[in-house]
Order: sequence, then structure tokens, then C-alpha cells
Amino acid sequence: MARAQAERQATAVWEGSLLEGSGQVTADTTGVFKDQGITWKARTEAANGKTSPEELVAAAHASCYAMAFSHALAQAGNPADQLEVTATVGFHPKAGGGGFEITYSNLDVRGRVPGLDQAAFEQAAREGEQGCPVSNALRNNVQINLNATLESA
Amino acid sequence: MARAQAERQATAVWEGSLLEGSGQVTADTTGVFKDQGITWKARTEAANGKTSPEELVAAAHASCYAMAFSHALAQAGNPADQLEVTATVGFHPKAGGGGFEITYSNLDVRGRVPGLDQAAFEQAAREGEQGCPVSNALRNNVQINLNATLESA
Repeated sequence: MARAQAERQATAVWEGSLLEGSGQVTADTTGVFKDQGITWKARTEAANGKTSPEELVAAAHASCYAMAFSHALAQAGNPADQLEVTATVGFHPKAGGGGFEITYSNLDVRGRVPGLDQAAFEQAAREGEQGCPVSNALRNNVQINLNATLESA
Repeated sequence: MARAQAERQATAVWEGSLLEGSGQVTADTTGVFKDQGITWKARTEAANGKTSPEELVAAAHASCYAMAFSHALAQAGNPADQLEVTATVGFHPKAGGGGFEITYSNLDVRGRVPGLDQAAFEQAAREGEQGCPVSNALRNNVQINLNATLESA
């Protein structure tokens, strides 16, 4: 692992003002989504099928944390049968006015892991969160809340 | 705008260890992508069509910054004909060992904006970056580099 490294790229196009304009976003590296429509209204009110920076942050955080938690478990000798991570990201006007902010990312984790009890599962969940690169990219700027539930195998 | 707020959600599933396991990520709120395969190898080496947390952060940052920059321009009385923002996100082993980190997000912006010169375009680009919620979510954890180029209309 020591030498692995990567760059990943995406592009957004926008026309017009924030409130009346619109745009599209494309995952350049892989093309897993292309020219997906984005608007301010869909970002801050009902999504109506339009993705947003916050949904994309949620997807980044959920996928990153699933990997980080799997690593914490495997390193402790208890690889996961399955982990399921849902990230919920909040976007709100700043309390003092003057723009918006990403306020929180809530990680809800359910897992099936042979040989662990709920306490050990929660402990590994917290260790995984500390090592998660997306958590560390958001740390101190976005509130990260972690809720881990061990399911019976 | 003052009362608008939103929550957005995504889910990742993972089976097995970090190095030998694999998973899928889904944009729950909109379904713009579903069950997209993810692996550690595809995250850190050639992507081979598999998205990753870093590509998703790049898409979040590009789309958020395009909106924030459009707002800075429109507020100054010069709404953009078009902005195109590419975000390139780096993922590397930590210098001291012990895991990986998201090292940088480079924003490359090209724009067509009537009534502005390159200096004013760059100034608005910097102001937009300061107001960008995804930039502010990454601030001080991830190096953000901004390169803005005004194209002739």
C-alpha cells in the first residue's frame, strides 16, 4: 500500500446567476455520472432528482468510511461479513447570516461481524472514523456524528 | 434564500477486508448513481471505471464552487455567461506513515463573463472560493489551489 496514490477529477459547468442559472456536473475520471443537472433551488429545497454537492459529499463520506471501518475491523482480526454505511449531510444558512455551510455529516453504520460484541464493534467504528480520509478532510469544519449498530450474523 | 435548508443522503455497502473486499455506493436522495462498485485498488491505482471517495469529493467541490463563483460574479453585477470548473483531488499516503489522506483539491476555472478583465475575474474567483461551502468544509485540512482564466466572450 505504501506507494499507492491517486488523482481523481470532476467538472461542473454553470451558466448565469446562482439563483436563476443552472449547471451540470460530470465525473471525469470514470464517467459514472455525466452532465447531471444542478440548480440552487434543487440543492436547497426538494431535490427533484437533481444531485447536489451535499449528496456527493455524503457519497464520498459513506464510501470512504465503509473502507476505513473495514480496515479497522480486519486489522483487529475480525473482518466484516458486511458493513452498510449511510451518510446524511446537512446544508444550512450560517447562523450569523452571510451564506450557507455544510453543518454535519451523520454516519449510521450497521454491520455483521463475526466474533464481536456491540461494545467492540462501537470501539472499532470510532477507530475507523479517526482514520477515515474524508472524515479527516472535514474535521473541525463539519460536525461528524457516528452511530454504530452490530446486527446479529 | 434565508430559510432554505436541506439534507442529502448516500449509502455504501462493504464486504470483507479493505484490501481484499469490495463495495458499492448509491446516491440515495436522487438515485443519479446506484450500486457503483468501489475497491481499494481502484481507489489508489488505475480507476478502471470505478468511482472513489476522491472522485466524489472532486464532483462536490467543482459543483459547489461553480455555484459560489457564479454568485460572487452576479452580486458584483457581472453574471457569467458560462463557468467551467474542474476539480482535481489528490489522495496520498501520509508523509509519516499510518494511513492515507486527501492532500489537495485543485480548482481550475475557465469563464466567459461580459464586462470583466482578467484581474477582476481572478478577484471574484477568490471571493467565490472563500464563500464556497465545500471549500469551507475542507479548509485547513485539504490544500485548495485556485487557477482562474477569463476566456474571451
